Amino acid sequence: MLPPGTLLGPGDDAAVLAAADARVVVTTDVLVEGVHFRLDWSTPYQVGRKAMAANLADVAAMGAVPTALVVGLAVPGRTPVSTVDALASGMWEETGRVGAGIIGGDVVSSAEIVISVTALGDLRGRAPVTRGGARAGDVLAVCGRLGWSAAGLAMLRQGLRSPPAVVGAHQVPQPPYAAGPQAAAAGATAMIDISDGLLADAGHLAEASGVAIDIDSAAVPVAAELVEVATALGVDARRWVLTGGEDHGLLACFPAATALPAGWTQLGLVCEGRGVTVDGRPYRGRAGWAHFGSRGDR
Amino acid sequence: MLPPGTLLGPGDDAAVLAAADARVVVTTDVLVEGVHFRLDWSTPYQVGRKAMAANLADVAAMGAVPTALVVGLAVPGRTPVSTVDALASGMWEETGRVGAGIIGGDVVSSAEIVISVTALGDLRGRAPVTRGGARAGDVLAVCGRLGWSAAGLAMLRQGLRSPPAVVGAHQVPQPPYAAGPQAAAAGATAMIDISDGLLADAGHLAEASGVAIDIDSAAVPVAAELVEVATALGVDARRWVLTGGEDHGLLACFPAATALPAGWTQLGLVCEGRGVTVDGRPYRGRAGWAHFGSRGDR
Repeated sequence: MLPPGTLLGPGDDAAVLAAADARVVVTTDVLVEGVHFRLDWSTPYQVGRKAMAANLADVAAMGAVPTALVVGLAVPGRTPVSTVDALASGMWEETGRVGAGIIGGDVVSSAEIVISVTALGDLRGRAPVTRGGARAGDVLAVCGRLGWSAAGLAMLRQGLRSPPAVVGAHQVPQPPYAAGPQAAAAGATAMIDISDGLLADAGHLAEASGVAIDIDSAAVPVAAELVEVATALGVDARRWVLTGGEDHGLLACFPAATALPAGWTQLGLVCEGRGVTVDGRPYRGRAGWAHFGSRGDR
Repeated sequence: MLPPGTLLGPGDDAAVLAAADARVVVTTDVLVEGVHFRLDWSTPYQVGRKAMAANLADVAAMGAVPTALVVGLAVPGRTPVSTVDALASGMWEETGRVGAGIIGGDVVSSAEIVISVTALGDLRGRAPVTRGGARAGDVLAVCGRLGWSAAGLAMLRQGLRSPPAVVGAHQVPQPPYAAGPQAAAAGATAMIDISDGLLADAGHLAEASGVAIDIDSAAVPVAAELVEVATALGVDARRWVLTGGEDHGLLACFPAATALPAGWTQLGLVCEGRGVTVDGRPYRGRAGWAHFGSRGDR
């Protein structure tokens, strides 16, 4: 079903979308088979959902409500129609969850599956919440899952498919879309989609804002399910939580006096300076996922 | 340089673009190396220009002015940085020609080069000119080149690089961007970007409008340069003109009483019925380029 603001849907040279407050938020992400997903680890339906989720979360991270998306799909000619249908079905499922829809697309042939998604959003009259507005004295808070996708990936790499809740978190992230506009309405000073990992994206936020961020490790939620899986693998779940990407939670800063909206957890503080510390010290280890050629606008 | 309506440029989770009349036109196209372009036939700079041109022409075909674009670029890890720079340079050159700019992107690794472009546009308060508004009695008119890209492709397929004007027309199309809004202002009832070929796209327009179109072959301009090349190859230039795609000219219908804007040439008439004829008869031969999986919204 096409979203309510669709003034002209697919089938013409271009679509036309309402932009109620005379602005439109726009973001684009590309997912490549073998790099961003594997069809032996995820179904095409799951890949379709994940491709949309990554973009919808970027819109939410501006404090905006996703309105519509366009999709470019490059697939090998030998790809079964059922695979393309399942990809599309997953895409529609995920966009339907936020009341958005797909208003345009292009399907072409290629050597491997490449999915490019552009998502548009509505700021509902508010200023965009950028990465650059955090100020010393703000509190840092998170909404959404941390470390689940990394844990699921670790299980898949071991050839395991369970526990389904953990593996499923890698296959289809569950970004807290509504929390983005909610945080904006509550006065968030800065916000970012956690796609590269908590520490890495806190670093992006700190750098853009010209501040330092200190994370209180005791405040970072580590889900019991992840501890269980980590114990079985003989690793530390905390590493997934601090450095694992692709859960697409939202990380935001709020003025200290703000009553955090429901679902948000305070993780730390914004201070004068530069960089990210955990309990006042630099974190030892790789902070997160820095994708080849990433331009920081994912 | 970022376009004037850029409220927030690249570098954040998403960009923010002004949409002055509370609507935004959006279209997306994907180009794949080996399918849509060959780097032994075109330079990366030319490919960058062509990728943007295809999308900018789609925006123009709605009667809109392109405002901004986002680009997804998937490139093999072995690709020289100079190639990516040249692609980007071509993209910026072409967008600059219409006063638009690139406000977001994503660069990822892949097995082959895949360029996905999403273009946004401003209708300037006018209704979009769709493919579906042509009425019996309208005149059919074209603006822009016909057959040049096909002629250039024919030369490249022969291993030839000249004449440069013809080969160059395949490498970098020259869509008449300003003619789109101009036609809309003049009262065009329907319009389409000629990406698949004159007859094929006239067919799309006729089908969407529920009308028939008859093209007067004597009225279809055949450039002297194309006749010269066709003669050398021993083929008929008229075939390129009627069926060759990728020049991204604009094909539009106007009420019969309309004084056609400068640069537009009347080609035929809209009638009751279905389908496209040339001089009252069905055209013998393949009407144009129907790409694998094309969804008609290119």
